[in-house]
Amino acid sequence: MLGRKQMENSKKLKKQRNIVAGFQGEPGAFSQSAARKLLGEAVKTQPFSAFREVFDALRADEISHAVIPIENTLHGSVLENYDHILEYGFPIRGETSIRIAHQLIAMPGVSLRDVKFVYSHPVALSQCRVFFENNKQMKATPFYDTAGSVKMLSEEKPPNAAAIASKDAAEIYSGKILKRNIEDNRQNFTRFFLLTKQKSTLVSPEAKSKVSITFTAANTPGSLFRAMACLALRDLNIIKIESRPLIGKPWEYRFYMDFFGSMEDTVVRNALANLSEMTQACQILGNYQPTP
Amino acid sequence: MLGRKQMENSKKLKKQRNIVAGFQGEPGAFSQSAARKLLGEAVKTQPFSAFREVFDALRADEISHAVIPIENTLHGSVLENYDHILEYGFPIRGETSIRIAHQLIAMPGVSLRDVKFVYSHPVALSQCRVFFENNKQMKATPFYDTAGSVKMLSEEKPPNAAAIASKDAAEIYSGKILKRNIEDNRQNFTRFFLLTKQKSTLVSPEAKSKVSITFTAANTPGSLFRAMACLALRDLNIIKIESRPLIGKPWEYRFYMDFFGSMEDTVVRNALANLSEMTQACQILGNYQPTP
Repeated sequence: MLGRKQMENSKKLKKQRNIVAGFQGEPGAFSQSAARKLLGEAVKTQPFSAFREVFDALRADEISHAVIPIENTLHGSVLENYDHILEYGFPIRGETSIRIAHQLIAMPGVSLRDVKFVYSHPVALSQCRVFFENNKQMKATPFYDTAGSVKMLSEEKPPNAAAIASKDAAEIYSGKILKRNIEDNRQNFTRFFLLTKQKSTLVSPEAKSKVSITFTAANTPGSLFRAMACLALRDLNIIKIESRPLIGKPWEYRFYMDFFGSMEDTVVRNALANLSEMTQACQILGNYQPTP
Repeated sequence: MLGRKQMENSKKLKKQRNIVAGFQGEPGAFSQSAARKLLGEAVKTQPFSAFREVFDALRADEISHAVIPIENTLHGSVLENYDHILEYGFPIRGETSIRIAHQLIAMPGVSLRDVKFVYSHPVALSQCRVFFENNKQMKATPFYDTAGSVKMLSEEKPPNAAAIASKDAAEIYSGKILKRNIEDNRQNFTRFFLLTKQKSTLVSPEAKSKVSITFTAANTPGSLFRAMACLALRDLNIIKIESRPLIGKPWEYRFYMDFFGSMEDTVVRNALANLSEMTQACQILGNYQPTP
């Protein structure tokens, strides 16, 4: 038994050498931290400028894994990525969440009272509203990316500007943190999915794993309720429900649901059989173990 | 009886003189068309540059009505407005939907083959993808507003630019439609809500009216299911469900639901009493008659 385990470990290590995780943003982005949390600190990562490019790279086998944000506890779902997951069809193989702590970062030599302009992604700026109310001399200035705004400072070295981004971004671009944790709400978490074509190790029925599914429900009374009954009447706990419009069918929706369970569990398999009977186009998007 | 009706009509007319409907965007925006559909062609309208400003103006009684988009059949919900409706607490008094038909508009003298840049709101540009694939010489250029992009052409008169906006916008700014209905998908509708502090006329139980509600559900197994049961077990048809994160409570959600029914109907009132028992912070956002 020990011999087999060692062999498996050696195989795992070999596999890890070919692991490249793609993410959207510049080096230092929160997605990069999520990739490290999911695949180990030493994982090779590759930045892309748009979510669609990450999915395209995974399709073309230029990367082995994709790490994408799916929801934030202040901002809500990243709807674009729900649409991409469906379109590209890569299974969800992992999940983690990261606390979003925003740092006010400047280049060496720039002090807090020099700062007139603060660059960052619009979502990050909107999450530091209180900070801007207390510092009216600073102008919140939208930029395409959080880490990218620090990169821009490091290249252009404006004497009166700072950026809002992660601690990692400050380190990577040799920035100085002028003020720590300036976010309005500390309960600011982003949840990330890990997508890969590689076969996942089976998720044990004992561990608290999650199943993500999607389906469309007929536009008739009670159709969504009947779909949810397939899970609820089996005591399966729906964690999240998201809806997206069906293109070309006005006022009809596709639903996305996450619930606790394992595909190894007969109850879950029965629930899903029941669900494909009660809904249209039911698909399992993944069964995965969250990384705490 | 006739005398009373005439009096009511005269009161209605007087009231209409004080009606000013606020909307987000420039004159010629789809929201302005929605306001006219909801309140009559002659209604006075007032443009604002942000949704929040429309809500602020209604709060300050600078306008009597607000007309805001709530969802689009290609793009999904306008989540910002769900948040504003909850924050400001104005009741929903009406609803309508508008087919979004995009026109390629230029100033007189600019012909189709002159066009190198096409300005519009990013959502409008993304809804005309096929057009841009077939016209690779034109560069889709993001602008803050659809009608606003035509306004800009009328002021700056660039010799090589066009805009994507409504037929109304072409008329208002004396533009010329170079190509009609360039949207990818004709099943492109936006649904609008009418908000006002004014008392609504009661909605009859016979007519197909809608009720919009919101509640939060405890993070326990089956809580959302039990909430939906309050409606479904009374054969009330849930038309739409939307979820938004609860700020400060990671991975908990507020739900928004629309269903067919009237507050005059005992079954609906019982369902809502049942719902406030099964959920937290249940509120009725409005009971309204859709304008077809």
